[in-house]
Amino acid sequence: MKSRRKFLQTLTVAGAAATLPINLMAQQNSKQKLIHQVFFWLNSGVDVQDFIKEAKELGKCKTVDKFYIGTPAPTEARDVVDHSYQVACTLFFDSLADQDEYQVDPKHLAFIEKNSSKWASVKVYDFLI
Amino acid sequence: MKSRRKFLQTLTVAGAAATLPINLMAQQNSKQKLIHQVFFWLNSGVDVQDFIKEAKELGKCKTVDKFYIGTPAPTEARDVVDHSYQVACTLFFDSLADQDEYQVDPKHLAFIEKNSSKWASVKVYDFLI
Repeated sequence: MKSRRKFLQTLTVAGAAATLPINLMAQQNSKQKLIHQVFFWLNSGVDVQDFIKEAKELGKCKTVDKFYIGTPAPTEARDVVDHSYQVACTLFFDSLADQDEYQVDPKHLAFIEKNSSKWASVKVYDFLI
Repeated sequence: MKSRRKFLQTLTVAGAAATLPINLMAQQNSKQKLIHQVFFWLNSGVDVQDFIKEAKELGKCKTVDKFYIGTPAPTEARDVVDHSYQVACTLFFDSLADQDEYQVDPKHLAFIEKNSSKWASVKVYDFLI
């Protein structure tokens, strides 16, 4: 039994050591700001300005720190530049938790409910800054 | 000859009318802020932190208004979210002209010269906000 207890103790210590950095990472993440970058490819016939008016509601969600909305800029056509979408939204959050909360914010859910039929596709990039 | 002159005059006037809105658009664009959003997919073996250190030099280019750099956030894995890149850069410019100038800024060109072998692909989105 002694060797089994020793084995279990070792396992526990090893487990604690293995999870500690993950916990610390989570704490660090929780303090780190985040950009939530969204691109919309709208269905043909959808009025871009009307869609932008609707999408501006997203900026009013409780946990959004900063909100920007725009349309493709007439920059040089290069292979690496994608100008094919119609609307871009850039949202800044103070933490990962704030972005999680945004996903279930009533204003966000209402926007999706009302407007999801307007886009053919959407692409999201989330990154810690 | 008279009718030819008249035809040429009409052409010129029509040409002026056609180009005027484009010129006005350019003026409007020149006052509009722009986000230049870049995602890097690095070659295997490239140290992400070393690359970030190099890429931070981009934020020192003369016409950059604001600069953010980050790595994918551990947000929920959804079909619409791309977490596959390694480094994201968000650059704010005060105008289209400032972004054009950034493209040929010596610090930008030096970064490309020194680091372009480190990425497998890069994707750029430019949008007026």
